[in-house]
Amino acid sequence: MEPLPKLKIPERILLGAGPTNVSARVLEALGRGVVGHLDPEFLQLMEALKSLLREAFCSKNPITFAISGTGSAAQEASLVNLIEQDDEVVIGVNGLFGSRLAEMADRFGARAHKVEVEWGRIIEVEQIEAALKRCRKPKLVAVVHAETSTGVHQPYVPEMAELAHRYGALMVLDVVTSLGCVPVEVDQWQIDAAYSCSQKGLGAPPGLGPLTVSERALATIRSRKTKCRSWYLDIGLLERYWGQERLYHHTAPINLNYALYEALRLVLEEGLAARWERHRKSAAALQAGLGALGLKLAAPEGFRLPQLTSIRVPDGIDEAKVRAQLLKRFNTEIGAGLGPLKGRIWRIGLMADNANPQRVLSLLDALEEILREAGLEIPRGSPRLAAESMIAEGLN
Amino acid sequence: MEPLPKLKIPERILLGAGPTNVSARVLEALGRGVVGHLDPEFLQLMEALKSLLREAFCSKNPITFAISGTGSAAQEASLVNLIEQDDEVVIGVNGLFGSRLAEMADRFGARAHKVEVEWGRIIEVEQIEAALKRCRKPKLVAVVHAETSTGVHQPYVPEMAELAHRYGALMVLDVVTSLGCVPVEVDQWQIDAAYSCSQKGLGAPPGLGPLTVSERALATIRSRKTKCRSWYLDIGLLERYWGQERLYHHTAPINLNYALYEALRLVLEEGLAARWERHRKSAAALQAGLGALGLKLAAPEGFRLPQLTSIRVPDGIDEAKVRAQLLKRFNTEIGAGLGPLKGRIWRIGLMADNANPQRVLSLLDALEEILREAGLEIPRGSPRLAAESMIAEGLN
Repeated sequence: MEPLPKLKIPERILLGAGPTNVSARVLEALGRGVVGHLDPEFLQLMEALKSLLREAFCSKNPITFAISGTGSAAQEASLVNLIEQDDEVVIGVNGLFGSRLAEMADRFGARAHKVEVEWGRIIEVEQIEAALKRCRKPKLVAVVHAETSTGVHQPYVPEMAELAHRYGALMVLDVVTSLGCVPVEVDQWQIDAAYSCSQKGLGAPPGLGPLTVSERALATIRSRKTKCRSWYLDIGLLERYWGQERLYHHTAPINLNYALYEALRLVLEEGLAARWERHRKSAAALQAGLGALGLKLAAPEGFRLPQLTSIRVPDGIDEAKVRAQLLKRFNTEIGAGLGPLKGRIWRIGLMADNANPQRVLSLLDALEEILREAGLEIPRGSPRLAAESMIAEGLN
Repeated sequence: MEPLPKLKIPERILLGAGPTNVSARVLEALGRGVVGHLDPEFLQLMEALKSLLREAFCSKNPITFAISGTGSAAQEASLVNLIEQDDEVVIGVNGLFGSRLAEMADRFGARAHKVEVEWGRIIEVEQIEAALKRCRKPKLVAVVHAETSTGVHQPYVPEMAELAHRYGALMVLDVVTSLGCVPVEVDQWQIDAAYSCSQKGLGAPPGLGPLTVSERALATIRSRKTKCRSWYLDIGLLERYWGQERLYHHTAPINLNYALYEALRLVLEEGLAARWERHRKSAAALQAGLGALGLKLAAPEGFRLPQLTSIRVPDGIDEAKVRAQLLKRFNTEIGAGLGPLKGRIWRIGLMADNANPQRVLSLLDALEEILREAGLEIPRGSPRLAAESMIAEGLN
């Protein structure tokens, strides 16, 4: 047989909603030789991973590990383990990932009380309480901390958790796009289940879904009347592999776990607080530059994610063409709008290593060039200047 | 914060039940930079992957792609998409992975008619038919082609598929340990859903679950009365991402897909027939050597998997100690027994690159040394000699 085409992978600057670029150290770890999933050295790595993930989640939860699937698998794991047939759940829906929570809950047999607000708005505590009041016996409240589809940073999470507990419910938090970028304080906020992904704030390749589960949630799982509807994601089974029993369940994606370990080392060597601050400063610089480009931010002020900035596409601009130009001429990916925001916004991610001034400035230069060609009037060099002055301030 | 311990990964020779060692070309592909899951170049790679996977499965099924999880996730995907509440299913159980099929079917709401035989035996066609006759309206028959827990090669698969169809049921085949090692002819055998893993016969790292679904199975999926109980593994949704619509579903594990592509290139450049023959010959050499060691094979003659040889642990030998010695002194992993075979068998895998004379001979040397120290009387060098003479024959 004649040779098949060689693998062709372009070098991209990933400024979309994730995956983000992965540092050389992490890629090097990823490419190491495979060992067995029950190898004593790999079991040691699993122990280390649990401990680093606990630090990343700001939690002491014993059940803290990475699901062998993407963030969506960890999302599914969180719900499918907690929900039994006809359970009532309260779900905040202000974007795609909130809708998905509701969709999943429905598939797992729950009766979902959706708290729906317009995409791009935040959910209010009172709305959660009203929904809780409509339940006979609410099982859980779930909201999205960083809504990837809109760039909205959901506040009031500790208040919602307190409320959920007051009504006898568990609090589930989607931190897929927030972990590693902004504070996620699982224990302090009293979150019962939080799940994330590997390829955004943690700076690892996609394919793993970090998950942490409180003692309270674990008690709920252990007292289920029916078996978990998923075998692959059954925390009761996974716990026996990730715990001291080391009972074979599935073959862990060995190399992705190497990479996640190395990525977490980078996160924790930098320190969470320093990392959050770096994300905040990079976003401030980006937003200053976008202002000078004449672009409007889509998320409401005060509730904008630093790691993911959503921008309204100006009238008369072909949004897909701008993204295609960025990719073709600058090897730079940014995100499109999803669902009702399709064609109406761009989403710019500055996550993990990419939350840095260099990425901000080169993106602004590229956007300035493309948008000027598309007919926008932009004072030459002004976006870069605006960002630079913000960067200089940030460095004080 | 002080630096965390560096990632420490030993070099292992992986002769267990999988994962197997991954070639340098595949590891190199794995470690390439990340691109976006909707990047035009990645979408091209997905198309190429589908086409190479079809060749590996010997199928023209349009729905052929890799689940973003391990082989167990692909197993779950196969069942959860086909089963609806109270469906009757027939499951062949002659080892751990057959039990798991039944366990999963039960969780997805099916009434499982188990065809149970002793671990290590094959399932007979008549037993499947008897179970089909007990069903009012059987939805599917599922059996394991290569039972990883016993080393048994299930025959009569085409006959079972024909039978399933005659009774109006679908045929599901677990080819986790067979794909890439022994013939798996999905179309010719009329299999409706077959699933595998990346880390055994295909020689890629663990983390992806190749899956192929016939038109008949797809029609069943499309005419479901209820939604699939899994969102993450819903083939109807996955099809819209892997198909031309490119609708975002989840973020594919980009780098694992690079590696799978490269691994499939190696498989197809060698050619399936040549690869099957290489596995067959390597096993013949291994088995000759094991005979000279005085070891007895556990699987019945005529139904032994070349890629996975199960051996009875001789009386008076501490099986775990032998494995520990192999690992410590020879950096070589072999598999233990599972379930009722725990402590009673070893499982030796010769998969992908490891199906070669060099691996066979060095393992036999190591086993000879360890087993002699443990008290077995073995004529010095005889296992190697027996294997070498078989290898010489095989090369004629």
